Amino acid sequence: MAEDDRIPEDDVMLAETPDEGGRPDDRIDDERMDEENTLKREFVRSVEDALDAGETAQVYDLVEPLHPADVADLLELFEKDERHQLATAITDLMTSEVVAELNDYVREEMMEALPADAVAQIAEQLETDDAVQLIEDLDEDDQKAILAELDPEDRTAIETALAYPEETAGRLMSREFVAVPEHITVGDLIDFLREERDLPGDFFEVFVIDQRMHPVGTCQLSWILRTPRDVALGDVMKRDQTLIPAELDQEEVALMFQKYGLISAAVIDDDGRLVGQMTVDDIVHIIAEEAGEDALLMSGAGEGDINEPIREAYSSRVRWLVANLGTALVASLIIALFGSAIEKLVALAVLMPIVASIGGNAGTQTMAVTVRAIAMNQLTSSNTRRILTKELRVAFLNGLTIAVLIGAATAAIFTPLLGAVIALAMVINVVTAGLAGVLVPVAFDRLDQDPAVASSVFVTMITDSMGFFAFLGLAVAMQVV
Amino acid sequence: MAEDDRIPEDDVMLAETPDEGGRPDDRIDDERMDEENTLKREFVRSVEDALDAGETAQVYDLVEPLHPADVADLLELFEKDERHQLATAITDLMTSEVVAELNDYVREEMMEALPADAVAQIAEQLETDDAVQLIEDLDEDDQKAILAELDPEDRTAIETALAYPEETAGRLMSREFVAVPEHITVGDLIDFLREERDLPGDFFEVFVIDQRMHPVGTCQLSWILRTPRDVALGDVMKRDQTLIPAELDQEEVALMFQKYGLISAAVIDDDGRLVGQMTVDDIVHIIAEEAGEDALLMSGAGEGDINEPIREAYSSRVRWLVANLGTALVASLIIALFGSAIEKLVALAVLMPIVASIGGNAGTQTMAVTVRAIAMNQLTSSNTRRILTKELRVAFLNGLTIAVLIGAATAAIFTPLLGAVIALAMVINVVTAGLAGVLVPVAFDRLDQDPAVASSVFVTMITDSMGFFAFLGLAVAMQVV
Repeated sequence: MAEDDRIPEDDVMLAETPDEGGRPDDRIDDERMDEENTLKREFVRSVEDALDAGETAQVYDLVEPLHPADVADLLELFEKDERHQLATAITDLMTSEVVAELNDYVREEMMEALPADAVAQIAEQLETDDAVQLIEDLDEDDQKAILAELDPEDRTAIETALAYPEETAGRLMSREFVAVPEHITVGDLIDFLREERDLPGDFFEVFVIDQRMHPVGTCQLSWILRTPRDVALGDVMKRDQTLIPAELDQEEVALMFQKYGLISAAVIDDDGRLVGQMTVDDIVHIIAEEAGEDALLMSGAGEGDINEPIREAYSSRVRWLVANLGTALVASLIIALFGSAIEKLVALAVLMPIVASIGGNAGTQTMAVTVRAIAMNQLTSSNTRRILTKELRVAFLNGLTIAVLIGAATAAIFTPLLGAVIALAMVINVVTAGLAGVLVPVAFDRLDQDPAVASSVFVTMITDSMGFFAFLGLAVAMQVV
Repeated sequence: MAEDDRIPEDDVMLAETPDEGGRPDDRIDDERMDEENTLKREFVRSVEDALDAGETAQVYDLVEPLHPADVADLLELFEKDERHQLATAITDLMTSEVVAELNDYVREEMMEALPADAVAQIAEQLETDDAVQLIEDLDEDDQKAILAELDPEDRTAIETALAYPEETAGRLMSREFVAVPEHITVGDLIDFLREERDLPGDFFEVFVIDQRMHPVGTCQLSWILRTPRDVALGDVMKRDQTLIPAELDQEEVALMFQKYGLISAAVIDDDGRLVGQMTVDDIVHIIAEEAGEDALLMSGAGEGDINEPIREAYSSRVRWLVANLGTALVASLIIALFGSAIEKLVALAVLMPIVASIGGNAGTQTMAVTVRAIAMNQLTSSNTRRILTKELRVAFLNGLTIAVLIGAATAAIFTPLLGAVIALAMVINVVTAGLAGVLVPVAFDRLDQDPAVASSVFVTMITDSMGFFAFLGLAVAMQVV
């Protein structure tokens, strides 16, 4: 298990490598990057200053040593106008890798500022999947203009991809892969790979197909490398493989990669023919996006990208605030029902938001857990009842704890009876919150709606209304006023 | 670009593959899996029924065709007692892959029920990183008992890993990798790989090292496969590579994999020596976990795993509800200040929760966006001011929209003056919410605290208090009462 086993000391002598180039801390770039691997503020400022002073050559020299992903980060840090200035100053460094790494909003905004032939030139350098991403967000007119500038082969590939629905495997897959028939030997394959110039940039497995392009097995490159030349691929390959239907939603694709620990996988069309491959480096962005978006969706912040233009951020957020205004009005109506009780005992007005607020928090906790479990395919019809029972037990314990605290404090400051009322109302509301926190997202999921999107409004409405109703209603029923 | 280019038709004839085995829909298992690739309810129930009836052989036959990841999912769906029954019925199928795929809580619970030598036997079959994961969560006594049962080589490997802090690269890395000196040729390397039996299970690149075990470059397997035998590795390898310090936190490791699109990467110790590798299939779980946990942390649901035992779920959630009780009390104190005003005009009590509630929602929206941007390393000291300005503009637009709606409704139902008061209070509170939603998480981040954990309590306290204070205070100041 020790690493020394890996060095073939018996076969070859260790080289006397001179101490230059490829130093261990090559990528640990203290001058430009901080310990979190983000661009240092001083570095960003020096680029900004050079840009303001019109020192184009200096800007270029500063940016040149950066990795393309860091150049993309740098562009994102600038305001719109400065960004275009910077892009012009470093035109040679604006490689396809930089464009592929840019935030969607920033890329779209930069591409819209360029003429169609310039965008087409960039698209041609990109892999198909990145080119599709570049083009899909643009207006239809812009798309057409750019497609017209592309050479026919690239155009066909991009149009085929665009024919699949957004956020499906067909859109995201790469059309470049290595596929060979079963009977060829490892030696034949290696010879073929050595001769073929038009191989995909990245591949981690070789797909084995039959005459009709149906996948019959797969060979990881490491298996090929450790097998003698005369063995047939059919004897090295694994027949059991994960195949991704081209119509599959990216969220499900991401879950398959996670679940089965895939590095790459074959994409098949309706007829079961191999049409592309997906590699995990494209999937990690989707995994992060899908896992992270629930927090944003639950809060009603839409996509919640910091690079989203103000207009879009406003329109996606204000609609949830308006929806929330509706639920707040429902709660107000309930309070209004008890107006005369509040007039008689103002302590009710002082205490009532506590019951609603704790209920809202407890509901949000349970909802967050439920939404996450649904997203991870952990909560299915097989275990909903078990999870609900568990959540109600937790809710009861939580409600009881808070009820004791607030009940005792209220009894001490106001009256024991009012303490009993708020304690009982608290248990009722926190248990209601637990119930709503599980059932609302589960119901949305059964109705094929994204549970992260609308659950929050409903859960809050339920906990707010129940909070005011239980407290004020009990106060009247138990003759506190 | 068309897929046909990949088939070496000139070199080899396409085989007449008979239509059996490895069919395209091999993994699309309609009998057991639904269209979301989770286990069908009917299937789970049939396993349950067979288990209840004591039909062990039938249980085995039902489970046998499942992928290890799906066996793990099946175990997670059962209650504790049934789970042990199931595990006993399918002992032969409880492979190391199944154990590695189990949810942390479920695995821990199952391992605690087993004797030390049985756990040790499982640990020996696992890759080092999975074995470490298996052992690290157990009590120290259990850990010692299991380590004592291991053979010395595995024990040393696991102890070395455990010496690194939790959630660092050193803990998570695999100690199995391929490293060779620079001067050997592609042919030498292929011959070595064909002869060496003790290769790691998975590898996607070969690390090139100098005499002192310092990495000097890296070769993807596809580059090796396309290069003639007599070329030296030094001429194929890329010198520039991403090296991961063994002490680096898993969150930063995950961001590096995402940012640079890595499939695997070398892990180095303090002296810059190669000590392990990390592969992306281990990282995807971390990416999903880290991206998904913010929603749970912000809601105060702790780890929020549905498999978390009730006691732990209670203790992690109740502390946030107690903290929230504190902030609710602050809000109540503010209301109490205006008790006499409420007594005079009960409409104030009816309307005041609206201002607080919308402010809370607006604050949560901005906070979710900010926390996500910080987690993704998109919000740095270089662009904080720009983002704050943008968020305040969005907040002002949102506040204005809601203010017009609620102001008009209030003016119509109550008085124009009260309408003006609630409108003004709403703008003030929503803009305050925008300010708090950016500044609170940024402040926690600057203090090296996780902004997802505690921001929520502070933002809610600010928006609740400001909501009541602005509305009730303005009502008094503008002589509504």
